[in-house]
Amino acid sequence: MTRIDVGILGATGMVGQQFIALLAHHPWFRVSWLGASERSAGRKYRDAAAWRLPAPLPEAVANLDVQAAIPSAAAPRLVFSSLDSSVAGEIESAFAQGGHTIVSNSKNHRMEPDVPLLVTEVNGDHLALLNRQAARGWTGRIVTNPNCSTVVLSMALAPLRQFGLTKVMITTLQAISGAGYPGVASWDILGNVIPFIDGEEHKIETETKKILGCVTRDEVDPHPMVISAQTTRVAVQNGHTESISVGFEQPPSEEDMIHAWTAFKPLDGLPSAPASPIVYLQERNRPQPALDVDRGQGMTVTVGRLRRCPILDYKFFALGHNTIRGAAGVAILNAELMHREGLL
Amino acid sequence: MTRIDVGILGATGMVGQQFIALLAHHPWFRVSWLGASERSAGRKYRDAAAWRLPAPLPEAVANLDVQAAIPSAAAPRLVFSSLDSSVAGEIESAFAQGGHTIVSNSKNHRMEPDVPLLVTEVNGDHLALLNRQAARGWTGRIVTNPNCSTVVLSMALAPLRQFGLTKVMITTLQAISGAGYPGVASWDILGNVIPFIDGEEHKIETETKKILGCVTRDEVDPHPMVISAQTTRVAVQNGHTESISVGFEQPPSEEDMIHAWTAFKPLDGLPSAPASPIVYLQERNRPQPALDVDRGQGMTVTVGRLRRCPILDYKFFALGHNTIRGAAGVAILNAELMHREGLL
Amino acid sequence: MTRIDVGILGATGMVGQQFIALLAHHPWFRVSWLGASERSAGRKYRDAAAWRLPAPLPEAVANLDVQAAIPSAAAPRLVFSSLDSSVAGEIESAFAQGGHTIVSNSKNHRMEPDVPLLVTEVNGDHLALLNRQAARGWTGRIVTNPNCSTVVLSMALAPLRQFGLTKVMITTLQAISGAGYPGVASWDILGNVIPFIDGEEHKIETETKKILGCVTRDEVDPHPMVISAQTTRVAVQNGHTESISVGFEQPPSEEDMIHAWTAFKPLDGLPSAPASPIVYLQERNRPQPALDVDRGQGMTVTVGRLRRCPILDYKFFALGHNTIRGAAGVAILNAELMHREGLL
Amino acid sequence: MTRIDVGILGATGMVGQQFIALLAHHPWFRVSWLGASERSAGRKYRDAAAWRLPAPLPEAVANLDVQAAIPSAAAPRLVFSSLDSSVAGEIESAFAQGGHTIVSNSKNHRMEPDVPLLVTEVNGDHLALLNRQAARGWTGRIVTNPNCSTVVLSMALAPLRQFGLTKVMITTLQAISGAGYPGVASWDILGNVIPFIDGEEHKIETETKKILGCVTRDEVDPHPMVISAQTTRVAVQNGHTESISVGFEQPPSEEDMIHAWTAFKPLDGLPSAPASPIVYLQERNRPQPALDVDRGQGMTVTVGRLRRCPILDYKFFALGHNTIRGAAGVAILNAELMHREGLL
Repeated sequence: MTRIDVGILGATGMVGQQFIALLAHHPWFRVSWLGASERSAGRKYRDAAAWRLPAPLPEAVANLDVQAAIPSAAAPRLVFSSLDSSVAGEIESAFAQGGHTIVSNSKNHRMEPDVPLLVTEVNGDHLALLNRQAARGWTGRIVTNPNCSTVVLSMALAPLRQFGLTKVMITTLQAISGAGYPGVASWDILGNVIPFIDGEEHKIETETKKILGCVTRDEVDPHPMVISAQTTRVAVQNGHTESISVGFEQPPSEEDMIHAWTAFKPLDGLPSAPASPIVYLQERNRPQPALDVDRGQGMTVTVGRLRRCPILDYKFFALGHNTIRGAAGVAILNAELMHREGLL
Repeated sequence: MTRIDVGILGATGMVGQQFIALLAHHPWFRVSWLGASERSAGRKYRDAAAWRLPAPLPEAVANLDVQAAIPSAAAPRLVFSSLDSSVAGEIESAFAQGGHTIVSNSKNHRMEPDVPLLVTEVNGDHLALLNRQAARGWTGRIVTNPNCSTVVLSMALAPLRQFGLTKVMITTLQAISGAGYPGVASWDILGNVIPFIDGEEHKIETETKKILGCVTRDEVDPHPMVISAQTTRVAVQNGHTESISVGFEQPPSEEDMIHAWTAFKPLDGLPSAPASPIVYLQERNRPQPALDVDRGQGMTVTVGRLRRCPILDYKFFALGHNTIRGAAGVAILNAELMHREGLL
Repeated sequence: MTRIDVGILGATGMVGQQFIALLAHHPWFRVSWLGASERSAGRKYRDAAAWRLPAPLPEAVANLDVQAAIPSAAAPRLVFSSLDSSVAGEIESAFAQGGHTIVSNSKNHRMEPDVPLLVTEVNGDHLALLNRQAARGWTGRIVTNPNCSTVVLSMALAPLRQFGLTKVMITTLQAISGAGYPGVASWDILGNVIPFIDGEEHKIETETKKILGCVTRDEVDPHPMVISAQTTRVAVQNGHTESISVGFEQPPSEEDMIHAWTAFKPLDGLPSAPASPIVYLQERNRPQPALDVDRGQGMTVTVGRLRRCPILDYKFFALGHNTIRGAAGVAILNAELMHREGLL
Repeated sequence: MTRIDVGILGATGMVGQQFIALLAHHPWFRVSWLGASERSAGRKYRDAAAWRLPAPLPEAVANLDVQAAIPSAAAPRLVFSSLDSSVAGEIESAFAQGGHTIVSNSKNHRMEPDVPLLVTEVNGDHLALLNRQAARGWTGRIVTNPNCSTVVLSMALAPLRQFGLTKVMITTLQAISGAGYPGVASWDILGNVIPFIDGEEHKIETETKKILGCVTRDEVDPHPMVISAQTTRVAVQNGHTESISVGFEQPPSEEDMIHAWTAFKPLDGLPSAPASPIVYLQERNRPQPALDVDRGQGMTVTVGRLRRCPILDYKFFALGHNTIRGAAGVAILNAELMHREGLL
């Protein structure tokens, strides 16, 4: 089988590197084009980017010349984007205008009514929104995935929608890799907790409602639950831990909740889809980033410590790999779904 | 002025060492007696204990002979206790029986109806419970302080009682020193989060209600609010950070809440009482353990990021030094209050 | 091919768990027997041991009943040992007496003249010492591997022997996993450096000379170089970093040294032997534990920053995974070599 | 006594903030002028700088208007400098030209033959070099202090000069605060070691020889010892740990060395001079940054683990606070000495 050429916009950043690492041995996609800022354009990738992942930089990608982030015939039809939000909006629109399919991790287009905000297993049917993008005059299209902490929350909540979610309280303990590179200064986080991540709480409170919402006539009706988020940064390399309480219209039993999570396997046969998208751990001190973040190649969300909440109905913890399940990995899975649906 | 001789039970542990450090230059109290386990008894303190604090071990204490943890004429009337809970119950009772005033950080007697569970600024009037201890046949008495995370929460909530607290949701991010020594293995916490601390959530949910309760006829009527806690351990040396949401009968304005915190100065003239028991920080990324934990010599609780909560009424963060404000420091302050009230 | 049954003594500890993880899919060996202390014996492994590795505990091993650490017909002929040194000496001797081949990571027998101290690629010929063990009246035998920091040093030095090593100065920065579990208390190492590891410097200074020594007539003539070591513990999960200066009889060129390292591939065809036992990194800020420790499945030693030393001849850094290359991994590789040599 | 007005160039950086914190209650000096980059000039300090120290920002300094870093009549005669090296050379020269006494932590002028490179207790007599600065046409002058790791090494070596130092091997484990702010990215250092600090090894190898050299006829004759340095960055907030081996012409006894360190008290009566500039710790696992870095208000260098080195004569560890003893603190102490010598 011939692999499909793909490009990466924002290829030198933390998520851009994660895209490259995850696509190194991908059965369907092959990285053939890299776009980045003016500063990097024109140099070989190995010279333009300081590679910061333990996984090796593939030789073939290392030798690619980095291109300017402008649409061109040389760029493949399918382009992943992890551009900085200061430039992502315009550049991604230009690529969509120019006929490219942009699968983006950037925040700029997420909340636009005709742009799918996709967590593959959760709301693949939101791809129906793409029907509306032609009205923009685009020959290409844009699909986005949410903020990393929102991906983890959405995965944990999706199987619980059947019980009538009404309220969600969440406090996050987020890894430093979520801030990109150089991101958080070591002086600020070593032995410390920072109880603030700019814009994060708003994203959790709004993006989650769009993702869990229903699509009718190519329009998303946001989920009516109320969400309240507090976010913190902790000295963890990878993995967002989330302390969550939920209220329901018809509170299920604990067994029902655990069954809902473990039975949640809506996808089948996509290369990046983990065998178990959600794993519930019985041990009383789990999930933990150091032990659980890489489950399912970083694509599995782990949940644990489910018990009654005296204020809402239940409380529990969830954990997911923020740059894989929460960023590059979910974007690739989104593209895989689009490929299977004939949307590439 | 002659200083009052005091003893320390559990003198070799983490909180025991903190007692020694805080009492090094205390104007009222002088450490003259140290009690510990059989293993340590009979040795000089400098040999029995591996000193683990940056503050220097006072020479005079270093040279004291460690005694067995049994009541004796040689032990001073006032004895602080930070004994392990596996032995604290019986030993503290024996000392109280033997005429000693035990000011304890251990959990064993906290919830007994005739034992004050004291956060000095919050519920000094609970000392009235002491009237009932004679009924035990004790010539001495026992006063306790709560669990470290509960101290911080109680301080943050106390000024808000006036608005009719109804619900409190809390997720803690707790420092490793709270687990004592050796406590948390480095393998378990380096670059990690542990979403479980044994017994901690129950303590927060029950102790806080006793502390904020009213005393009538030498009995505590627990505060009726509902509390739901999730607790985590993070890679922080000192300082418990708490993510808190609160609901009220009559929700105040933000200004009222901040004023309530900053105006909260119920104590005056006690040596260990900080000028400002609660400080509200306006910066949007505070409080932080690395920057704020030592305020007021570790006795000030810092609060920040107050804003509306879409589920309860308000959310905010609070921070306190767990082995000072949350343990040895609050115990000393409790003893200072008792001294002023003529209860020693 | 039928896999050979193997046992693990000290199966519940940090290195014992690493043995289990590395043998999970081993083509030659199959874990069929687990020995541990009285406390664990008689329980299923999953109940006796708290599994602390990110790699999953294999189901088949989880369900094994842990046995007492005494020789028995039920124990396989080949037994890996990571027993605590307080008991390893006698137990390992008893197993050797009883006909078992012990491949041990424990320190007790390392420096005995008839016991090979083996770093597989470096001194496989030291297996000749086994000829002398029959004189002990053993029907089995004992082979050991060195201390974790010594393994890394020996690997880095082995290719340089040809230039006449005379002096080696080393300062180590060692990971916490090297201390086992619970090992280093988090209070002691978080944001800290501990400039002391009990017994470690002596081991480096003596074990390395035995490993790099020559065997003649079943006797090791220790290498005559002088070694001086200072050792420190740092807040790193896995990976010992070593700052090394070396003096030679005939100092080679930098190119010769790098070639010696990269050409060092003495083994071929053993399942756990990495394609490149030593990799030299050209980047000026490498090797780093976070980026390089898992190279070659944790079996590759990385070297970098080679340059002239104004006191000795050259200085450089080396890094290796302390519980894989430095413990369980090298022991397994030793057993693989013995199998190929017909010594099992 | 009226305090002397002082200025700070580079006031917003990490060392600039440390200057402000240390001068907050200084008996001789009062901060009245702050200079920084164009970006900060014209704004109140509290707005121009994000304060990052646990010590409080003094109100009086917070309200100062930050000035451009150009000489003016408004700037005090005495100006401390912690400018970035990309601009420090020219700006400091301009201030010296304009009649200011610059006491600088920047590297630019350190190695110039007419500029004292001062560690106050070690080579105060190097101030004689100032006689030569008039030849530059300056009406002011420049005094520098060395690189932070060099300060610690120089302090540890100075008392040993009497034994004829010949060789010094050093491996450093340096704190992140030494890299300024934002400095080291948390992604790079969390759970990691970086075996490279740009330019640091060269500074240690050259600056130390100038500091320990003799001044004759206003010229420094560098110390003839040979120094070889390897430097690493570790996940420590404050405190450089140094693993050191030394060779002597006449090797002293261990007792002589320890006596030399503890008897080293060349200064008397300067406000920032610690009672004990060097403390030798007998415990076998010291010094440690977490326990010892703040001794003597961060101005004491701690030494430990002295023992024979089989290659050179002795080996030991030294530790010092890199932004206090190694930067702002030593600069202030240098200014205090100059004041007492009538050189301000």
